[in-house]
Amino acid sequence: MTISTPTTIMVLNGPNLNLLGSREPDTYGALTLSEIEHMTTDHATRLGIDISFRQNNHEGTLVDWIQEAGDNTAGIVLNAGAYTHTSIAIRDAIAAIKTPVIEVHLSNIFAREGFRHHSYISDVSAGVICGFGATGYVLAIDAIASMLRVK
Amino acid sequence: MTISTPTTIMVLNGPNLNLLGSREPDTYGALTLSEIEHMTTDHATRLGIDISFRQNNHEGTLVDWIQEAGDNTAGIVLNAGAYTHTSIAIRDAIAAIKTPVIEVHLSNIFAREGFRHHSYISDVSAGVICGFGATGYVLAIDAIASMLRVK
Amino acid sequence: MTISTPTTIMVLNGPNLNLLGSREPDTYGALTLSEIEHMTTDHATRLGIDISFRQNNHEGTLVDWIQEAGDNTAGIVLNAGAYTHTSIAIRDAIAAIKTPVIEVHLSNIFAREGFRHHSYISDVSAGVICGFGATGYVLAIDAIASMLRVK
Amino acid sequence: MTISTPTTIMVLNGPNLNLLGSREPDTYGALTLSEIEHMTTDHATRLGIDISFRQNNHEGTLVDWIQEAGDNTAGIVLNAGAYTHTSIAIRDAIAAIKTPVIEVHLSNIFAREGFRHHSYISDVSAGVICGFGATGYVLAIDAIASMLRVK
Amino acid sequence: MTISTPTTIMVLNGPNLNLLGSREPDTYGALTLSEIEHMTTDHATRLGIDISFRQNNHEGTLVDWIQEAGDNTAGIVLNAGAYTHTSIAIRDAIAAIKTPVIEVHLSNIFAREGFRHHSYISDVSAGVICGFGATGYVLAIDAIASMLRVK
Amino acid sequence: MTISTPTTIMVLNGPNLNLLGSREPDTYGALTLSEIEHMTTDHATRLGIDISFRQNNHEGTLVDWIQEAGDNTAGIVLNAGAYTHTSIAIRDAIAAIKTPVIEVHLSNIFAREGFRHHSYISDVSAGVICGFGATGYVLAIDAIASMLRVK
Amino acid sequence: MTISTPTTIMVLNGPNLNLLGSREPDTYGALTLSEIEHMTTDHATRLGIDISFRQNNHEGTLVDWIQEAGDNTAGIVLNAGAYTHTSIAIRDAIAAIKTPVIEVHLSNIFAREGFRHHSYISDVSAGVICGFGATGYVLAIDAIASMLRVK
Amino acid sequence: MTISTPTTIMVLNGPNLNLLGSREPDTYGALTLSEIEHMTTDHATRLGIDISFRQNNHEGTLVDWIQEAGDNTAGIVLNAGAYTHTSIAIRDAIAAIKTPVIEVHLSNIFAREGFRHHSYISDVSAGVICGFGATGYVLAIDAIASMLRVK
Amino acid sequence: MTISTPTTIMVLNGPNLNLLGSREPDTYGALTLSEIEHMTTDHATRLGIDISFRQNNHEGTLVDWIQEAGDNTAGIVLNAGAYTHTSIAIRDAIAAIKTPVIEVHLSNIFAREGFRHHSYISDVSAGVICGFGATGYVLAIDAIASMLRVK
Amino acid sequence: MTISTPTTIMVLNGPNLNLLGSREPDTYGALTLSEIEHMTTDHATRLGIDISFRQNNHEGTLVDWIQEAGDNTAGIVLNAGAYTHTSIAIRDAIAAIKTPVIEVHLSNIFAREGFRHHSYISDVSAGVICGFGATGYVLAIDAIASMLRVK
Amino acid sequence: MTISTPTTIMVLNGPNLNLLGSREPDTYGALTLSEIEHMTTDHATRLGIDISFRQNNHEGTLVDWIQEAGDNTAGIVLNAGAYTHTSIAIRDAIAAIKTPVIEVHLSNIFAREGFRHHSYISDVSAGVICGFGATGYVLAIDAIASMLRVK
Amino acid sequence: MTISTPTTIMVLNGPNLNLLGSREPDTYGALTLSEIEHMTTDHATRLGIDISFRQNNHEGTLVDWIQEAGDNTAGIVLNAGAYTHTSIAIRDAIAAIKTPVIEVHLSNIFAREGFRHHSYISDVSAGVICGFGATGYVLAIDAIASMLRVK
Repeated sequence: MTISTPTTIMVLNGPNLNLLGSREPDTYGALTLSEIEHMTTDHATRLGIDISFRQNNHEGTLVDWIQEAGDNTAGIVLNAGAYTHTSIAIRDAIAAIKTPVIEVHLSNIFAREGFRHHSYISDVSAGVICGFGATGYVLAIDAIASMLRVK
Repeated sequence: MTISTPTTIMVLNGPNLNLLGSREPDTYGALTLSEIEHMTTDHATRLGIDISFRQNNHEGTLVDWIQEAGDNTAGIVLNAGAYTHTSIAIRDAIAAIKTPVIEVHLSNIFAREGFRHHSYISDVSAGVICGFGATGYVLAIDAIASMLRVK
Repeated sequence: MTISTPTTIMVLNGPNLNLLGSREPDTYGALTLSEIEHMTTDHATRLGIDISFRQNNHEGTLVDWIQEAGDNTAGIVLNAGAYTHTSIAIRDAIAAIKTPVIEVHLSNIFAREGFRHHSYISDVSAGVICGFGATGYVLAIDAIASMLRVK
Repeated sequence: MTISTPTTIMVLNGPNLNLLGSREPDTYGALTLSEIEHMTTDHATRLGIDISFRQNNHEGTLVDWIQEAGDNTAGIVLNAGAYTHTSIAIRDAIAAIKTPVIEVHLSNIFAREGFRHHSYISDVSAGVICGFGATGYVLAIDAIASMLRVK
Repeated sequence: MTISTPTTIMVLNGPNLNLLGSREPDTYGALTLSEIEHMTTDHATRLGIDISFRQNNHEGTLVDWIQEAGDNTAGIVLNAGAYTHTSIAIRDAIAAIKTPVIEVHLSNIFAREGFRHHSYISDVSAGVICGFGATGYVLAIDAIASMLRVK
Repeated sequence: MTISTPTTIMVLNGPNLNLLGSREPDTYGALTLSEIEHMTTDHATRLGIDISFRQNNHEGTLVDWIQEAGDNTAGIVLNAGAYTHTSIAIRDAIAAIKTPVIEVHLSNIFAREGFRHHSYISDVSAGVICGFGATGYVLAIDAIASMLRVK
Repeated sequence: MTISTPTTIMVLNGPNLNLLGSREPDTYGALTLSEIEHMTTDHATRLGIDISFRQNNHEGTLVDWIQEAGDNTAGIVLNAGAYTHTSIAIRDAIAAIKTPVIEVHLSNIFAREGFRHHSYISDVSAGVICGFGATGYVLAIDAIASMLRVK
Repeated sequence: MTISTPTTIMVLNGPNLNLLGSREPDTYGALTLSEIEHMTTDHATRLGIDISFRQNNHEGTLVDWIQEAGDNTAGIVLNAGAYTHTSIAIRDAIAAIKTPVIEVHLSNIFAREGFRHHSYISDVSAGVICGFGATGYVLAIDAIASMLRVK
Repeated sequence: MTISTPTTIMVLNGPNLNLLGSREPDTYGALTLSEIEHMTTDHATRLGIDISFRQNNHEGTLVDWIQEAGDNTAGIVLNAGAYTHTSIAIRDAIAAIKTPVIEVHLSNIFAREGFRHHSYISDVSAGVICGFGATGYVLAIDAIASMLRVK
Repeated sequence: MTISTPTTIMVLNGPNLNLLGSREPDTYGALTLSEIEHMTTDHATRLGIDISFRQNNHEGTLVDWIQEAGDNTAGIVLNAGAYTHTSIAIRDAIAAIKTPVIEVHLSNIFAREGFRHHSYISDVSAGVICGFGATGYVLAIDAIASMLRVK
Repeated sequence: MTISTPTTIMVLNGPNLNLLGSREPDTYGALTLSEIEHMTTDHATRLGIDISFRQNNHEGTLVDWIQEAGDNTAGIVLNAGAYTHTSIAIRDAIAAIKTPVIEVHLSNIFAREGFRHHSYISDVSAGVICGFGATGYVLAIDAIASMLRVK
Repeated sequence: MTISTPTTIMVLNGPNLNLLGSREPDTYGALTLSEIEHMTTDHATRLGIDISFRQNNHEGTLVDWIQEAGDNTAGIVLNAGAYTHTSIAIRDAIAAIKTPVIEVHLSNIFAREGFRHHSYISDVSAGVICGFGATGYVLAIDAIASMLRVK
């Protein structure tokens, strides 16, 4: 089930995700972002995929990184956090590149406040995975791997 | 990666999904529902999971099946089709049972008509996967398998 | 307080009400639908009224039954469950018959999610009773009995 | 069916209900408020319940009375009339006391103007009865009596 | 142009109209309510009409007065002030009586804040006059006098 | 009560008002537009005011006439009919001239369809008179006469 | 299938319909308005009906023509074009006459921009036919002919 | 005007249309569904077209029938009744087949309650005919016949 | 930090605030209104300010008091309770006087039901303080004292 | 910077623009329409372009002119005034022709009343220029000249 | 009134607050941010509290600082400026930490543009103070000091 | 047409504009941002104006630059990209400075997604130019040059 040519997937995490583990664990789970990084990297390694795992609180930095990924990666796993609901800039960055983006959320955003039900990112992403906690990152890696096999 | 005790997952498909393959292939893909059933069953078999794969055009029948699954299965993969956006009855059935439900859509519903952006099912489901075509069914099986391992 | 001529009232229950007792008891109470049927029938018998007590998950079947009741009963006690909020077909069936319909809800629908605050049925019903649990069915029988005495 | 300990229920009527009988009889019925008071009191007496029956056109007086009832009665039957749709003060009074409140309306408010479809009172009341004319007051007494028996 | 039988018109003024003259004169004009009363009474006297001119800050008192006027007057000139936009109780009082009500506003409410654009009173009033300052009261007396002549 | 210097008021009538008398008499009254013209002119003559009374079905012609009136008259009585609710062009013409405009409606527009509740004209008019039938034109003449006396 | 007494139907076409054939043929079809006139007239002649076929870009002219038709024709086939969605004046003209009006659209307005989904004309018309191109005019003639036979 | 090759059109009727004749005749006309079937079939026979005329109260059954018609007929005349306004499932079935669908309503749905003004079906149908009573079915047959001739 | 000339601040409390201490203590705190009065008065005394502390359930009485304060006090601390969200009459009273008004709420109204998020009072008040419980009254006294020092 | 072949641009001005200079100069500037015409014509002449400069208060006349321009000009500069916000007829005329249309406004419509923020014309125009006063007309000529050079 | 253990409060200022004094002084007051810093620090020093006073135009930097403050301070006084109304990222940062946050605004945001009436921050803050200019910062320090004394 | 004193205009470009040329060329044109910079600078040089041309993906950096430009330039040409629709911070920066800002968009934002139709920047800008591609930058330079000449 491995893929011959080494491939990189960029996993981008938005604002406040650096607080995972301590931040509202009932909503976001008890794993730290570092533990999610390991879990994701381990899974990707088994598939022959490299992971560039990053977090930042700045909308502009996420735009920079998506542009960077557009030239150098096979896909982006994007948990844009709060910017999911407010950033047309991130949306435009996704629409501007050809690399597929998978939108991931740890919590089920549809079971939360009304302002989290709308995403500016979903309709320009290849697909959406939400509500599965850290497992969602692993499923997103699988989804991109599946796309790579189809090509 | 297999699971010792045999387990059944019910995969329920709502209205018009029996037309897959011929129906608007640009939106829904070229696979028939029967091909998706085989793909899903093969993947589940490798994980030691049994699949009960069904389709029906009646909202009431989907309610019946969800109630039935509530007593006899380890999880439901539900592609409720158009009823996703109009059925509080299906939502109530999901809320009434303890078995986790994974909401799946072949297409990216957020990139389609406005009336498909709201789901009555999402906030009572364990998670949502959409936009990956038939691969979404496989990811949903993996998600439930992951939940089973955690328990 | 009894009524001389035997009379039938149809008591119709919509989707998921067959799960009562086990389904979210904090919201719907601990009585099963069968227990509510006995309680309702006992009360009606004391008033000389026959009860036809039914449940179904299909919107179309509820339409069928309301049409049937229109010719053969002195009134309908209708707990349409989730279809209360989505079914214009049931509304049209009520408007098409002359038999009075009493809308009943076990829970206080106004204290729940916003989408349960609107009923397509209320304005074509004779009256509405909600929030009293199983007692609501008994009050609805009394309300119809009161209408019969007035005629 | 009587209750041993004497109990008082306060029946509160809001603005313009003193005009009943002459005011739009097609909507509100031909009974005067005094006749409804007798009908309600007679029914309550048979159940061993005392009634304090009042009417006032002032929102503030209704708030005063609900506060007063909160300390001295077994329940409130409240027909708040027009204040149903505009008074958060009355709503807050209901939420501030432990005595159960039954919201009653003579007419079917859902079959009238749009601004009568929303009640600020319903979701903090124990239950709602509407559309049955004066009979609604009797059903409300029965509903409170039923709650008293359960306790 | 006088009318033979003596007739009374009740002129009712709502909250804060007792402050006229000092209150925001750019919006409401420099005349005091007492000066408007004299101007209105003088005009009515010339037409053989008596005026009962009143002001109160309580919604309930306005309801009381409208009910009182319903039995004893040939018409009501009503400047309900802020209650115009929030009181269904006053609306219901108007709808409950047969005496015609003329809605009057000193200022042009349509040229002010959005929440003053909707009146709960207009559609149950005989007519609306707004924007003419104190002259509006005189025009309203003329309008009722005109109705009396038609009868 | 007459005014020394001769003065002209333009009375402008919008679309379909030429049909008055035959058109929905329950809503608009039984008087023809010609009869209203006579009634208005007679009243104005007694006050020493000349009337230029016109009707047209074209929005643009009403704009032309309002511009024309802006230079030559002491006031405009405007019954813009249906254009009241749709014409920003007429609104802009009113705002562009200094002559006061009185908005008049025969029927009570607030007691009719929702789309008639909003007027593009009210907030740029000097005042609004509605619901008094043909009497409204007379009241509007009086209102302008009153403004002339104040100046 | 012919009708004995000669009868006239007025066929009115609103703004830009004079451009048919050249204007967005994918939406409106390749026929010119003149070709539609011939097709409509031929069909009407076979039924013994005369046609007065007109086009104009002015809202006011359409109002004039509808008023004219109200006295002289057996029915109006009205394709009001863009004014369908903005003209209350045309709506009022239709409501003011007794002659039945059939609303016709060449294209399926419900499959186009949101602002074309609402018609001010539909609810005062006898019926609506849309989406059939030039055939819609012929069906409308048949519909009026059918009404004439029923009378 | 007949067509050489025999052709079948499926005429599908939704919920409560089996009550026609007795149900609110002021709205729906005095003809029974059986009479409409005869009228439609007679007209179609004259054009060399076969009719399969059906009615059902279940949304799912209408979906089944539309799918069935997609393979075997030259067109569908669909009066979906109340499901017109609530069923995305029926909409999706129409969009999934190539056979043209004509949406028909007996009454003018735009002159009725607001919730009947929106149709989920119109924009995926070939055209819409409403307000002509039973005649609408005949016009729909003609519309499909006209399409057949064009092909 | 004391102020030389004695000054009075009126502290006005609206409906249901007389229940503080017993009413929903999780939301409003455990202090009674009498304890808040002492705490506020003590603080004001230290600043050389007199306090007139009042509570009433009537909207009209609050209007009366604000008018009274307008002539006799250096400021108003207003906790209008539920009337905050429904009373334009209180708003108008505030706008009509020159004395500054500080809007205070014990609870954080923005963290409660949606209908408490809008205040008719905020934009005509000098400032808003909410969410600090009884401390909010003390801060409001300080805010007015600060304004007095600036003058 | 001149263009060899003589070219005509039609500059169309909508309702009330004939009042420029006297009409609300704070909003629209002190230049008359005649002065703008000279300024525009002078600039165009330097580029070798002819100008046909027109103004009319009728929506229908603007439609006529846009149709006329569609056959005979290199571009349209359109200041549709109030019709910008209400006319789908003008929008349809623009969409029906191939000649590019530049939407121009003297004032910044986004800094004015809410109903001026939406334009029916913008999305079918080649571009929009607003807020620059008479300079906007010159910029629009340049924009069309630039398009001509590109072709 | 001082507090024994030294404590730090972080005072965070969002975009454009560095322009205070020169920026729209009618709205924001004449004090510079530096003057507010001194005023706040002086007051805090008297209470034995240290202040870390900062300003930045970047949303991400405010998120960084709130996270930093969550570990090291007794409270945050946050004037998020324009980000108040658009930043869910800042909201999430506040919700993720235990340190209380006081939302402060110099101007009365409720008396300004509609888009400033909603705050993403209020309901996760401990309290809100707005409209008091620089005094608001001092009141916020007092509010946190009061919380510290209670603990 | 040149201007004697050297003047600087800052041309600011927001998120993703660095991708021009490769990013969705159908929407944004084939020119790179560097080519637009040259074209703009060349044009400005001919008018004796210096250009400071910049691009950044961070909202905060755009705020910094606008503040910087406020002290040092004769005008700002601002293409804020996606921040146009979401940034009140940028709006506030524009409102805080006296230098005129011209809002420019390459594409016609009114012909794109609904969320691009609203700009937080337009009503505080001097003017808006959109839909002309790179030419829009040149027109904006001309517009500022025109303003400089007027001063």
